[in-house]
Amino acid sequence: MKTVVVRNIDRADAAAVKRLGALGVSTVHEAYGRAGLMKPYMRPIWPGGEAAGTAVTVLAHPGDNWMIHVAVEQCRAGDVLVVGCSADNSDGMFGDLLATSLKARGVLGLVIDAGCRDVKTLREMGFPVWSKAISAKGTVKAALGAVNVPVVCAGVNVEPGDAVIADDDGVVVVHRKDVAEVAAKGEKRQADEEGKRKLLASGALGLDMYNMREPLAKAGLVYLDKPEAE
Amino acid sequence: MKTVVVRNIDRADAAAVKRLGALGVSTVHEAYGRAGLMKPYMRPIWPGGEAAGTAVTVLAHPGDNWMIHVAVEQCRAGDVLVVGCSADNSDGMFGDLLATSLKARGVLGLVIDAGCRDVKTLREMGFPVWSKAISAKGTVKAALGAVNVPVVCAGVNVEPGDAVIADDDGVVVVHRKDVAEVAAKGEKRQADEEGKRKLLASGALGLDMYNMREPLAKAGLVYLDKPEAE
Amino acid sequence: MKTVVVRNIDRADAAAVKRLGALGVSTVHEAYGRAGLMKPYMRPIWPGGEAAGTAVTVLAHPGDNWMIHVAVEQCRAGDVLVVGCSADNSDGMFGDLLATSLKARGVLGLVIDAGCRDVKTLREMGFPVWSKAISAKGTVKAALGAVNVPVVCAGVNVEPGDAVIADDDGVVVVHRKDVAEVAAKGEKRQADEEGKRKLLASGALGLDMYNMREPLAKAGLVYLDKPEAE
Amino acid sequence: MKTVVVRNIDRADAAAVKRLGALGVSTVHEAYGRAGLMKPYMRPIWPGGEAAGTAVTVLAHPGDNWMIHVAVEQCRAGDVLVVGCSADNSDGMFGDLLATSLKARGVLGLVIDAGCRDVKTLREMGFPVWSKAISAKGTVKAALGAVNVPVVCAGVNVEPGDAVIADDDGVVVVHRKDVAEVAAKGEKRQADEEGKRKLLASGALGLDMYNMREPLAKAGLVYLDKPEAE
Amino acid sequence: MKTVVVRNIDRADAAAVKRLGALGVSTVHEAYGRAGLMKPYMRPIWPGGEAAGTAVTVLAHPGDNWMIHVAVEQCRAGDVLVVGCSADNSDGMFGDLLATSLKARGVLGLVIDAGCRDVKTLREMGFPVWSKAISAKGTVKAALGAVNVPVVCAGVNVEPGDAVIADDDGVVVVHRKDVAEVAAKGEKRQADEEGKRKLLASGALGLDMYNMREPLAKAGLVYLDKPEAE
Amino acid sequence: MKTVVVRNIDRADAAAVKRLGALGVSTVHEAYGRAGLMKPYMRPIWPGGEAAGTAVTVLAHPGDNWMIHVAVEQCRAGDVLVVGCSADNSDGMFGDLLATSLKARGVLGLVIDAGCRDVKTLREMGFPVWSKAISAKGTVKAALGAVNVPVVCAGVNVEPGDAVIADDDGVVVVHRKDVAEVAAKGEKRQADEEGKRKLLASGALGLDMYNMREPLAKAGLVYLDKPEAE
Repeated sequence: MKTVVVRNIDRADAAAVKRLGALGVSTVHEAYGRAGLMKPYMRPIWPGGEAAGTAVTVLAHPGDNWMIHVAVEQCRAGDVLVVGCSADNSDGMFGDLLATSLKARGVLGLVIDAGCRDVKTLREMGFPVWSKAISAKGTVKAALGAVNVPVVCAGVNVEPGDAVIADDDGVVVVHRKDVAEVAAKGEKRQADEEGKRKLLASGALGLDMYNMREPLAKAGLVYLDKPEAE
Repeated sequence: MKTVVVRNIDRADAAAVKRLGALGVSTVHEAYGRAGLMKPYMRPIWPGGEAAGTAVTVLAHPGDNWMIHVAVEQCRAGDVLVVGCSADNSDGMFGDLLATSLKARGVLGLVIDAGCRDVKTLREMGFPVWSKAISAKGTVKAALGAVNVPVVCAGVNVEPGDAVIADDDGVVVVHRKDVAEVAAKGEKRQADEEGKRKLLASGALGLDMYNMREPLAKAGLVYLDKPEAE
Repeated sequence: MKTVVVRNIDRADAAAVKRLGALGVSTVHEAYGRAGLMKPYMRPIWPGGEAAGTAVTVLAHPGDNWMIHVAVEQCRAGDVLVVGCSADNSDGMFGDLLATSLKARGVLGLVIDAGCRDVKTLREMGFPVWSKAISAKGTVKAALGAVNVPVVCAGVNVEPGDAVIADDDGVVVVHRKDVAEVAAKGEKRQADEEGKRKLLASGALGLDMYNMREPLAKAGLVYLDKPEAE
Repeated sequence: MKTVVVRNIDRADAAAVKRLGALGVSTVHEAYGRAGLMKPYMRPIWPGGEAAGTAVTVLAHPGDNWMIHVAVEQCRAGDVLVVGCSADNSDGMFGDLLATSLKARGVLGLVIDAGCRDVKTLREMGFPVWSKAISAKGTVKAALGAVNVPVVCAGVNVEPGDAVIADDDGVVVVHRKDVAEVAAKGEKRQADEEGKRKLLASGALGLDMYNMREPLAKAGLVYLDKPEAE
Repeated sequence: MKTVVVRNIDRADAAAVKRLGALGVSTVHEAYGRAGLMKPYMRPIWPGGEAAGTAVTVLAHPGDNWMIHVAVEQCRAGDVLVVGCSADNSDGMFGDLLATSLKARGVLGLVIDAGCRDVKTLREMGFPVWSKAISAKGTVKAALGAVNVPVVCAGVNVEPGDAVIADDDGVVVVHRKDVAEVAAKGEKRQADEEGKRKLLASGALGLDMYNMREPLAKAGLVYLDKPEAE
Repeated sequence: MKTVVVRNIDRADAAAVKRLGALGVSTVHEAYGRAGLMKPYMRPIWPGGEAAGTAVTVLAHPGDNWMIHVAVEQCRAGDVLVVGCSADNSDGMFGDLLATSLKARGVLGLVIDAGCRDVKTLREMGFPVWSKAISAKGTVKAALGAVNVPVVCAGVNVEPGDAVIADDDGVVVVHRKDVAEVAAKGEKRQADEEGKRKLLASGALGLDMYNMREPLAKAGLVYLDKPEAE
């Protein structure tokens, strides 16, 4: 492991990232070919929070939040801080002081594969966090990790500058170079869904709308009028 | 596994199911002899949701929601869709489009031993879901399962037409033929509890109200005035 | 295991416990030298609940809540009931009737290393509970445990009369004799943090405020202007 | 929940059950249309154990093994005891004394959705057990459950008399009436696999043997000579 | 948390500890009134290992094994090292070098609520370990904990000098002052079981041997000759 | 997600990979700066298995092993197959037929972030597997994934051609270009440890050998002759 801080990173196009944020996690994940989704144990610490920004990445160690302090300086407006950990850990690496510092720099949220604390204050500040756990457990500042290197966070390899979209459905990461293409696909998908939603609301069946009856029959699905006698 | 769809099922009596819903999950579970309760990992995706209906059952496979699309057609007003999965899976098999379709048919809610997405929209729609996970993970439509056969969902064997009662305390299933008896028992229990609640609020002790002092003494419980010296 | 009920226990100083409650879990945990924190699976059953009181302890067995009924009589105003279990269990050992009884005695909340039910009613009553699970699962009254003996609850050894502080960040326990000292340290910490918060909000960096740059350099942290070529 | 013991049950045909045992769990599960498999947390307490018999079922409660004592009397040679639990529990409900008793009656093994103890002695006795946990935790004899009613065990609804096949790959349950058909299908599958195994050992590719190249191409799989430049 | 090392501790009587070891974990746990048992996630890293000694205790932090190095000096022949952790952690805090050092001092084994590595070498050395995980994850030496203070390890509060008995069934802890009494009770239990085992092997039923038929009938157990028609 | 198969990949130097294998997982992980280690839930399906080879990578979907069949063709002697999954899944994606096919091509083992079956036969074949679960659960062949693209497996981002070292301590991955450097460092570490092992075996203390006494004192560690009176 390289214990380095990379100062200058290429960030995903801010306008495209904003468009991804407007689409929401589920649509972006589908538009991205069902890629980039973090594991579902990553949950918002308060409901309704949303963030869409560019990743500044941190590799931290269990029970140690030193590198998060280091990372703050590398953040700028429009970023989302993404923290991976070298082993499973739920300690409260992040609280309201760090959030105050990030907010002062225009950072939009935190995604951390570990624990978070000061939940009530963070909610009042409107600072959104997606974490693996809520825990008051204090951490030390003793071991070097890295900032702005690729990190695996909740099952996804995140590179510095990637787009990070997070809402009540979870967190999805889109590679820096793919944001415009994914935004376009997602917007098309969203437009298509609008029509479908209306049809379904009026009573149409997905079976017909998606032409599923034939492939189901081909696959061997059998309709019975009543349960088979045992 | 039979890959079938059963069209006509016998449903629990709607009026009795409504009475069960008024009692709530904990009372119904007790009145049912402490049977029928799903595992506690089944949680509402938004707090305060409630549903009481008759089960249309689905057996799905990991990462595949095809059979949910098939099941919609078999649902009618007053049903609750119950989805079991052939192996542990947390993928987002259900979202707002399917909910729109179910709502159009008068379905009251979803109980799914897998994941759910579009949480924010579902909350806004007032469509209640109890699931194992919240996940944006997209699913394929490739493998046949079954509709309206008995399925194990979160530890309970659910038969088509059974009563499904769900609220903030979880999900309980009552066999189709037992609903009237359980409703009657539950109502009696609820009436009894009202009196107890008043007594307890006024300072009475359960120890006395339930006549526990004698059996406790018989079982060997000892009262000490202070901790034993070590 | 001694199957006893201890009637008279020494309780932590009520005024100091109140001061700890005003500080909140995370600050108390830090002020206590990062000790006393329960595992993060202990979560409030409704957000925003807070409690700070003296422990009446219960040792219960899986699926059996008899000793909770026994413990009620030993509680008085300002207490928090703390329930440990002799093996992992998520059954709903506690509901609104027991809460009514505890409330009538002035008990401030419940911390239970097992399950809880009647969540909706408890929220309406404003009775806060921290538990391992929400479950409607009913329990028997068959096996003796103990009341007011030391119990391990969610990884912490709790002695009767200890201070128990609980909020959205979790649950922390402070030994009866340490409350005044911890309250003083916590208040100092809180005062210090106020100044730091203002500095950070104005854009100061923790790196500078905490003098981290030198130790980081000594530990070998390297700043790169751009990613190393692979 | 009915607290009953059913004395006479119909058992699956013994000869067919033996044939299923010779096939092993994975083959039986496939031959059964990929049905009947218990969740993979059910593991043998010692490697290499195998059992194939007819189910005598028990519904027990957390921390209580009373009904296992009751069930022994209902067992006969060729049976496998299957224990479900009304809630998640890992207590050591079963040990070498109960195994001695079962062995004396010709019972072939135990499948328990809870804990087991005396592992060393059970291994020396050659009595195979599949369980959720190994735990010395003692249990009480206080609450009634049931014997020889359908029970959900590790995600499968087991009816009395069903065939239970267990080995290092896990546990599969075949409905009493389906054993002969599944045995025949499994034997055919096994015979087919023998030829495939030889072909594959000689270097043939599954891609060709199973004619996968065309459907893969149709589905859109693309072969690249080298990684795409990023 | 006090960051101290206590040099002189009172140890449980060595002869009595040996007798406990001869009884094994399950018998000791029962003889101790079903107390003292660690959670079942504590498993031997190789089957068949056994240890019975007096506890030298360590409180470590996630990802940090510094205090284990400190503790070695406090160990003497007949001890078992018991390591608790201030938060859930599975890192490999212990390997063959530490085992070599402990073995040189006559230490009989390790019980660690975290991870262990060098499994193959430890098995070859015959050094038994009970741990929460096997993990090669390296740890730092940065944060002070404590040695020979009470620590909670896998749900049990262990005091320095307590007896620690461990085998394939798990780990049980007996308070220093209770060892002789528990050994005597356990030996009586073991003697009683010998007779029971013979009776059961000859076909006697526990139902009769333990006189369960009457209490079962009183509790309401009903025997049916065949399943109730649904 | 790109649904591609990359035919030609650069593999880590075979000789250096062999040297890494001789060092074992824990030493390689340390020599690599404590990087590259998979999560500890990845366990060998039979004890004592070892593998050291170059990664051919697969991205599969829950319940679907189609891409493993595709990957076989891309493997050659000295490879280890590494399978990541797009969502948590424990299905038995791999069994003895696939192992026969891989063995015929000289593949040294399998690392799969999902389930495996036919455990007994695989042990008899001497084909080592590290997996998340053992499960007989059958899988479909329906959805495209990818072969020889970077995949996250058990928390590590694995690129095609990387070195994969696996033994009883787990699985570690070393980037293709780093193998020679890591092998050299590991061999040095191993040589150093030999001397330390002898010293420790003769009774020397790590406290002295590693010069820990001074930093411990500086950090504030206090030695007490006996426990503080409470």
